Amino acid sequence: MKMFPSLEKKYTKEQLRVLDAQRLAHEIAFAPVIFQVSRLMEKFGIFRLLADTKDGLTMDEVAEKTKLSRYAVQVLLESSLTIGTVLYENERFVISKAGWILHTDPLASINLRFNHDVNYLGMYHMEEALLNGKPEGLKVFGQWKTIYEGLSSLPDEARKSWLDFDHFYSDNSFDEALEIVFSYKPATLLDVGGNTGRWALRCVDYDGNVNVTIMDLPQQIGMMKQQIAGKNGEERIHGHGADLLDKNEPFPKGFDAIWMSQFLDCFSEDEITSIVRRAAASMDENSRLFIMETLWDRQVNDVAALCLTQISLYFTVMA
Amino acid sequence: MKMFPSLEKKYTKEQLRVLDAQRLAHEIAFAPVIFQVSRLMEKFGIFRLLADTKDGLTMDEVAEKTKLSRYAVQVLLESSLTIGTVLYENERFVISKAGWILHTDPLASINLRFNHDVNYLGMYHMEEALLNGKPEGLKVFGQWKTIYEGLSSLPDEARKSWLDFDHFYSDNSFDEALEIVFSYKPATLLDVGGNTGRWALRCVDYDGNVNVTIMDLPQQIGMMKQQIAGKNGEERIHGHGADLLDKNEPFPKGFDAIWMSQFLDCFSEDEITSIVRRAAASMDENSRLFIMETLWDRQVNDVAALCLTQISLYFTVMA
Repeated sequence: MKMFPSLEKKYTKEQLRVLDAQRLAHEIAFAPVIFQVSRLMEKFGIFRLLADTKDGLTMDEVAEKTKLSRYAVQVLLESSLTIGTVLYENERFVISKAGWILHTDPLASINLRFNHDVNYLGMYHMEEALLNGKPEGLKVFGQWKTIYEGLSSLPDEARKSWLDFDHFYSDNSFDEALEIVFSYKPATLLDVGGNTGRWALRCVDYDGNVNVTIMDLPQQIGMMKQQIAGKNGEERIHGHGADLLDKNEPFPKGFDAIWMSQFLDCFSEDEITSIVRRAAASMDENSRLFIMETLWDRQVNDVAALCLTQISLYFTVMA
Repeated sequence: MKMFPSLEKKYTKEQLRVLDAQRLAHEIAFAPVIFQVSRLMEKFGIFRLLADTKDGLTMDEVAEKTKLSRYAVQVLLESSLTIGTVLYENERFVISKAGWILHTDPLASINLRFNHDVNYLGMYHMEEALLNGKPEGLKVFGQWKTIYEGLSSLPDEARKSWLDFDHFYSDNSFDEALEIVFSYKPATLLDVGGNTGRWALRCVDYDGNVNVTIMDLPQQIGMMKQQIAGKNGEERIHGHGADLLDKNEPFPKGFDAIWMSQFLDCFSEDEITSIVRRAAASMDENSRLFIMETLWDRQVNDVAALCLTQISLYFTVMA
């Protein structure tokens, strides 16, 4: 662990006074309730209503505007008041800073929906997942070995939340990465774990000559083809179906560049070693391997470190 | 809402700087993961191990002592570090104040187990519960109208966590309440919603003459009889099976005292009015009605207010 200095400062020294620590402990103990209440404050449009008023709203006004029962509005608002997402000013409810961030920060909203639609029920099985070393939470959706095999069969809402999550975390880094990779002018690129083809599409768009081959599970290749259909450069994106965790599955040869983005962190050290070793075996002296990873301990912002270490459990329990 | 001054101060004025509000928003977005990780830090004994060492432990030492895989220990510890329940001092993990409170505060531990064993899966259905005005989360356990009908049929672990929770919240207030109620020397007491008979047992123990009748659902009366069997004063505890929500169900007459403890808050205003009206109809000029309730807005401590407003959703979704 090589913590960035700002993280080191925060995580190597007690930060909280006893009263704040007590509050955190009890927030954790009630976390499932706090989560669902906050999710519904957004989904029922209450955060939006409060954000849109200057002076706030009474309970009755919220009930009237949302068509929810007075009782539903009362339990949600009182719970949110003690959670800290709303305040009670001049006998009216107003949105707090934390509520405002939940309502307006796309990352918070994407994480929230991902955690409800994809992870919530599966996380109940975290204990078995950690003890058995398998994504035991995935059984709430089906009997697959990994979530990637099941992606195309997930319920619509779960698949949408999964894709939104996946794309948000990758899209934000592609601009910078494209410049680095294409400064080497690769004519052929192997996109390992290329998923739904977001990176491949950006590549063929960025460079009119490059051919990209996505190496991923056969089911994933099928989903990728649907996703890229009709898009610019589609004809230069190819699929290579393979189980990357199969130690006997060689990597195809002859690529100028091999690309792995936010991919290796899905696996154990043994699996990572096997993947990188097979990648190396497929390379010659002119080929290059690019690895892009978000490492929690190299983040400047402790909120980013928080998100990344929690996402890690998604890989443990669901993926 | 008549907030106690310390709550009013906290809940009517923004408390957080933007960075802290951002952190709270993202803690909420990952709350299900944060909850399960923290639960397992306790259940796997990691908090205990860390609490028992002065200088902390390395990841490998935790793995060795818990017999968990290195991977399991790593994801749990890294997640807990960013949650704030452990710290990383001199390259070893130590327990933080918040971790220590989760580990040692019986209330935190009881809430945590209650929220996992009883509420976690049901809370997924909070949306339907609020929209339909019914405890829709209860279906994860069975097809009952209320959880009280189903208590005796809950899985062992859920029933145990439910009873621990229920008893903890009531037991702590009984000493003071007994003094007040028995200063009026009632010979007969009607314990409305008397549940498993904890209060009744305390009454017959406190006063060698009193006869207590528990009015509750017939299933609950059966469970109560099992719970009081063999205890001191058992022969002076009687059952009166009734559906208290049935507006046509009269209260039995002739009691010197009627007792309702943490009972009315389970119901809507209409239901409460009906219950109190029927209680009044059963009383004469010498009988007294005692109501004991924990009101979230009358708490001195904001952690108590937090717990109570979150528990409210248990009544909405599960009870």
